[in-house]
Amino acid sequence: MANVAKKVSWSGRDRDDDEDGRAGETTPLLNGTGPGAAGSGRQLTPSSFLRIGQLSNVDLNEDIHELETEVPRQRPNEIPHNEKLLSLKYESLDYDNSENQLFLEEERRINHAAFRTVEIKRWVICAMIGILTGLVACFIDIVVENLAGLKYRVVKDNIDKFTAKGGLSFSLLLWATLNASVVMVGSLIVAFIEPVAAGSGIPQIKCYLNGVKIPHVVRLKTLVIKVCGVILSVVGGLAVGKEGPMIHSGSVIAAGISQGRSTSLKRDFKIFEYFRRDTEKRDFVSAGAAAGVSAAFGAPVGGVLFSLEEGASFWNQFLTWRIFFASMISTFTLNSVLSVYHGNAWDLSSPGLINFGRFDSEKMGYTIQEIPIFIFMGVVGGILGALFNALNYWLTMFRIRYIHRPCLQVVEAMLVAAVTATVGFVMIYCSRDCQPIQGSSVAYPLQLFCADGEYNSMATAFFNTPEKSVVNLFHDPPGSYNPMTLGMFTLMYFFLACWTYGLTVSAGVFIPSLLIGAAWGRLFGISLSYLTKGSIWADPGKYALMGAAAQLGGIVRMTLSLTVIMMEATGNVTYGFPIMLVLMTAKIVGDYFVEGLYDMHIQLQSVPFLHWEAPVTSHSLTAREVMSTPVTCLRRIERVGTVVDILSDTSSNHNGFPVVESNPDTTQVAGLRGLILRSQLIVLLKHKVFVERANLSVVQRRLKLKDFRDAYPRFPPIQSIHVSQDERECMIDLSEFMNPSPYTVPQEASLPRVFKLFRALGLRHLVVVDNRNEVVGMVTRKDLARYRLGKEGLEELSLAQT
Amino acid sequence: MANVAKKVSWSGRDRDDDEDGRAGETTPLLNGTGPGAAGSGRQLTPSSFLRIGQLSNVDLNEDIHELETEVPRQRPNEIPHNEKLLSLKYESLDYDNSENQLFLEEERRINHAAFRTVEIKRWVICAMIGILTGLVACFIDIVVENLAGLKYRVVKDNIDKFTAKGGLSFSLLLWATLNASVVMVGSLIVAFIEPVAAGSGIPQIKCYLNGVKIPHVVRLKTLVIKVCGVILSVVGGLAVGKEGPMIHSGSVIAAGISQGRSTSLKRDFKIFEYFRRDTEKRDFVSAGAAAGVSAAFGAPVGGVLFSLEEGASFWNQFLTWRIFFASMISTFTLNSVLSVYHGNAWDLSSPGLINFGRFDSEKMGYTIQEIPIFIFMGVVGGILGALFNALNYWLTMFRIRYIHRPCLQVVEAMLVAAVTATVGFVMIYCSRDCQPIQGSSVAYPLQLFCADGEYNSMATAFFNTPEKSVVNLFHDPPGSYNPMTLGMFTLMYFFLACWTYGLTVSAGVFIPSLLIGAAWGRLFGISLSYLTKGSIWADPGKYALMGAAAQLGGIVRMTLSLTVIMMEATGNVTYGFPIMLVLMTAKIVGDYFVEGLYDMHIQLQSVPFLHWEAPVTSHSLTAREVMSTPVTCLRRIERVGTVVDILSDTSSNHNGFPVVESNPDTTQVAGLRGLILRSQLIVLLKHKVFVERANLSVVQRRLKLKDFRDAYPRFPPIQSIHVSQDERECMIDLSEFMNPSPYTVPQEASLPRVFKLFRALGLRHLVVVDNRNEVVGMVTRKDLARYRLGKEGLEELSLAQT
Repeated sequence: MANVAKKVSWSGRDRDDDEDGRAGETTPLLNGTGPGAAGSGRQLTPSSFLRIGQLSNVDLNEDIHELETEVPRQRPNEIPHNEKLLSLKYESLDYDNSENQLFLEEERRINHAAFRTVEIKRWVICAMIGILTGLVACFIDIVVENLAGLKYRVVKDNIDKFTAKGGLSFSLLLWATLNASVVMVGSLIVAFIEPVAAGSGIPQIKCYLNGVKIPHVVRLKTLVIKVCGVILSVVGGLAVGKEGPMIHSGSVIAAGISQGRSTSLKRDFKIFEYFRRDTEKRDFVSAGAAAGVSAAFGAPVGGVLFSLEEGASFWNQFLTWRIFFASMISTFTLNSVLSVYHGNAWDLSSPGLINFGRFDSEKMGYTIQEIPIFIFMGVVGGILGALFNALNYWLTMFRIRYIHRPCLQVVEAMLVAAVTATVGFVMIYCSRDCQPIQGSSVAYPLQLFCADGEYNSMATAFFNTPEKSVVNLFHDPPGSYNPMTLGMFTLMYFFLACWTYGLTVSAGVFIPSLLIGAAWGRLFGISLSYLTKGSIWADPGKYALMGAAAQLGGIVRMTLSLTVIMMEATGNVTYGFPIMLVLMTAKIVGDYFVEGLYDMHIQLQSVPFLHWEAPVTSHSLTAREVMSTPVTCLRRIERVGTVVDILSDTSSNHNGFPVVESNPDTTQVAGLRGLILRSQLIVLLKHKVFVERANLSVVQRRLKLKDFRDAYPRFPPIQSIHVSQDERECMIDLSEFMNPSPYTVPQEASLPRVFKLFRALGLRHLVVVDNRNEVVGMVTRKDLARYRLGKEGLEELSLAQT
Repeated sequence: MANVAKKVSWSGRDRDDDEDGRAGETTPLLNGTGPGAAGSGRQLTPSSFLRIGQLSNVDLNEDIHELETEVPRQRPNEIPHNEKLLSLKYESLDYDNSENQLFLEEERRINHAAFRTVEIKRWVICAMIGILTGLVACFIDIVVENLAGLKYRVVKDNIDKFTAKGGLSFSLLLWATLNASVVMVGSLIVAFIEPVAAGSGIPQIKCYLNGVKIPHVVRLKTLVIKVCGVILSVVGGLAVGKEGPMIHSGSVIAAGISQGRSTSLKRDFKIFEYFRRDTEKRDFVSAGAAAGVSAAFGAPVGGVLFSLEEGASFWNQFLTWRIFFASMISTFTLNSVLSVYHGNAWDLSSPGLINFGRFDSEKMGYTIQEIPIFIFMGVVGGILGALFNALNYWLTMFRIRYIHRPCLQVVEAMLVAAVTATVGFVMIYCSRDCQPIQGSSVAYPLQLFCADGEYNSMATAFFNTPEKSVVNLFHDPPGSYNPMTLGMFTLMYFFLACWTYGLTVSAGVFIPSLLIGAAWGRLFGISLSYLTKGSIWADPGKYALMGAAAQLGGIVRMTLSLTVIMMEATGNVTYGFPIMLVLMTAKIVGDYFVEGLYDMHIQLQSVPFLHWEAPVTSHSLTAREVMSTPVTCLRRIERVGTVVDILSDTSSNHNGFPVVESNPDTTQVAGLRGLILRSQLIVLLKHKVFVERANLSVVQRRLKLKDFRDAYPRFPPIQSIHVSQDERECMIDLSEFMNPSPYTVPQEASLPRVFKLFRALGLRHLVVVDNRNEVVGMVTRKDLARYRLGKEGLEELSLAQT
């Protein structure tokens, strides 16, 4: 069953060679009995390490609390995806620089001119991110267009052939087989090579930008699988889009370029070494995500806002400006290349993978009277979105329980592909909605049983890539679709899209959502005209746009960034206000029922995701209640053996260790002196930076920052470092490697206060000290993410290994 | 001379009844000899108060440093606007909540439902901010349109009359007199009633959002003067716009509404009392500023970005979404009202005070070849902008020295008004550029010496409100202006606008900048076509737009927000990329010479403005060098007399006092227990919250948070509180009023680290502690703002009372 949970989780690897060397935990409190440890794991184990606060500072309530939570000892692996669980599997990123002596020395050596060089490098990297993201988007677009075109032409010829002489079931078979086989390949590579490439990648990138390290998420291999996977899913006719995955792709590109090396390719270009730390990498990944959005929707400002909404801890003007630059370059590159490809070079008419096309504001402005109607559409979108999410939630739970093996996942994907084709075929077959072919812009008009010179209107929606269908729904002249077609299409596509999201294929949910919304929005517009007997002239295209916004908003619940993305994708700011109203309404209504799709999936993975603010009613909790205790501390000059033992201790594989005063004669004052990370200790041990106990005056070997950077981000596990028995007795001086000024909070600080500090500075470890600056506890991401606002007020999630 | 400096400064009041009760300082180190104290004032005075760190923790270097800086004892008032000076006059805002027991008790009492009510109130306030800001913008627009229309019609009739029969000097006289008298009124009210209403208000709002308290800046009186002042300046024909001041107006509206009372009107509506603290108020002011931008330019997203760029400490999704809501409501209100006013109700065609008009992207797209040309225009804009700023800098210095009296300021404003009219008249008179009136959309066509059916083209630029001139330059068909006209206009308007900015009138610099840029941009476009003999067809309107962007970017140096504002004002996202390139180039080139206009004026006022990051080369400084020391501390249970003495001490009017353990027998450990603010102490003293020393066990009077909120934001000065000799001997227990978990940093933390914490959390006081949690110093805004990156690396500003 542990295997089960593994397979469907994002990391998806059995032997999880995590970026930090091991699939360890950050929370220093988990002293449970190995990976199967139960519940919140707040049990104390005997230990020979210097543990501070174990008895003296843990007050009585805390002890009682621990006893209480220890009682229900069910095995967490049996409920791997309980909503009220927080996984200990995920590491945190360090957005805070470890300001140790090495770092400060380097920074002090660098003069102003050198800083300018660094700054210029940042801009160059952002330009490269933009260009590469744009090119990848072009590649996807061109390949999809050609392959899908080929497929549709083959099927169309086949249908045309069999329409006359009967035997359309052959056409269906051909279509379904084509789809299923293409999807099979797409699903195979994802399931067997890189499971983290499944889905749109947006939840994963959200987590990454939030500060959670998702294994493999920004690797080159993931990018390759993602790109191929998206192409195959879209060509395979699934109800998916290629836009969402662009965000993931952009992020991987950014992470790769900014580090100047690829571990997948085992190449180190020896450039951009200054940027080899979490802080810088995360900034560049923000730029990559923005560039991805920008390439997908032609929405550079929307991209910037997306990155900021999801990732910003602290708004930094220079960073924002660079992100914007990357976004602009990205959409510009895409635009140039696609314009050249489409033969109208220089005119720059394709700013994004999907363009909603020109909404002529003169013809299609809105009036004040329409605003209540738009709000009503927002309500509908919110309800439909909530329904979509709820269905998908059940489906995901089902998948987690029963469809966990890669081969089953591939089979499911093939099944969905075949069913999608079949549904489409049946719908087209049964439809009697014929439209004159004259003047329409349908790419693959299916005549089927229509008269000559006419085409089947249902086929424009089903027999086409979803992007094209969306644009058709926005812009086809009034009367192109009859209400029945739209209604049936909405219904079918809704369930297909819902079934499709969560399959083991690379694919996004943006376009299907827009398509569902555009269909019912158009239907709504038509009905409105009809019901009011034409007294309200509702342009179906405009209502399709609002419906699309409502449905998408109801599903993903993004706010400002989505408004701007929609605004930019329409190339027109006129609709800004109604789109904002619709999205806001959809969000409020949707949130009333169930949370957004991405947040839901993040929660299903039990990711310790930090929201913007601490739960409003959490002022009653203080750092003392929240923190993990006891804390494993190190002394400033520590025995190597102790360090090795602490790092090897599987029951408490912490990642950050407070360093305390090592003066042996003042036993009672163990004042905090600094903080050192597991990764730093590993590097120290690897380089044998220690001296014999007898020769403490001998200066120990000096390390350079470069040594730490070279090991970043995949520090070897402690098991791979051999320390001899003699060496165990040596001493290691941590003074120059520890961060001498870690952020601290007093025990009395309230949870919101702790949360604010933690979130605003993007911390990984926050030391809790008492009045005498002695370490009493440690707050990490999980300690804060555990508290959540539930239906009945504050609730606490339990921790588990998942 | 002190008076001189006062008068031109933003606070502009001789008896400065500051919001915090007194024009005091925050820096705890200024122990100089009263308001005239010199230089950086790092001298130690004997004191009977508990001062910590005075000898023990100040290291030798620090002492030497102090001796050195003490040597040049020139009176700072003689160089009141030295660039290297930091004023101690400005208080800081407290963006960090004082989480004392009262606050926590209140927060804990509030349940989830009550929090929802608070949240709904926030939304209601934002909606009201949007509506009111929109209405104020409408009011300004309508009044200006009518008054300016009246003026131009009168002058035009006069000119038409005298053109035939000669004696046009009468017309000039009429025009100049009209302008001068209107401007006189506008200048009088600003100079004599509320000097802080002068200028665009953007630097002031930037400072406020940055966390600096500018006296009177968000008062109702300021709003009234601002609105009237703007109307009069624009009607008076100055080279100014009414857009910039909308940002200030929106901010005042926000501050007023969110507090539910007006001190100017002496009305307390007893609503929104929960929001009576700096944190909440500042959030609403962000929304107000955004609503102002939104109303001014029809740019809701641009408004949000403006607020974030200038104000955000910590990006908060909910806050951003509310700001966006306020912006949207604001532009929507303006749009609705103006649409109704213009007779085409419901069509919503006037989203902002200025609309750049429709740029038809089909006709006016850009090609890749044009991009280098745009970049070149950015360079030109950067150089011209830098020139503008440099000239304005000299002019401002001149004004500070010689034009300090209000009456002189009024005379200068009148002079500028008269000269503007004269220059315009002469230019029109000398121009021989006649254009056919047919098909043009000129509002007040002046025939002058043109043939019948023609009008003077120079007059479209000069004889019009600047907004209309900008739109004309963007959209008039090619050939509407001859190059000579544009060149002369650019030259003249450049100097006029430069002279005008900084006058004692309410007026913005956005529109004049756009106008200058549009003029030379159009000229550039025409020249380009001419020089390449038509091989490059440069649409003059498009080049006018790029020129406008370049010039504005060169002057104000805003980045992302300005790009989006320009994009939204054109109602079209097509030009996003070139506008971004132009603005970026203009900023880079401009920054090479001199800083942006707003930053320059902020610096001239010696405001302790915190930029985004600490200077890059400041890693060599640590908290120990940066902090102010000695710190005046209070004991947890303190004698009332001591408190009164400390608060009354004019040589060191601190605003925050660390509270230390009061146990008398452990003299050596004075561990930090909390932080209390001057304002809190004042309220405690006012309410006589103390007990006799003999009855320490008696519970002292309880205060409610309401008592503190009622006093906010204008706490009475300590002098107004009478404490009898008996009461002086009483004891006051600070435990429940102090913030028990103030943020602290160790002495070893580097300046960038301290800066980041301070800036990210919007702090006002940051306590520096040693390893035993003893207070050794205090870091306030001025200590951080002192360090700046100059031409030759890090430089330190001196502190002065200005």
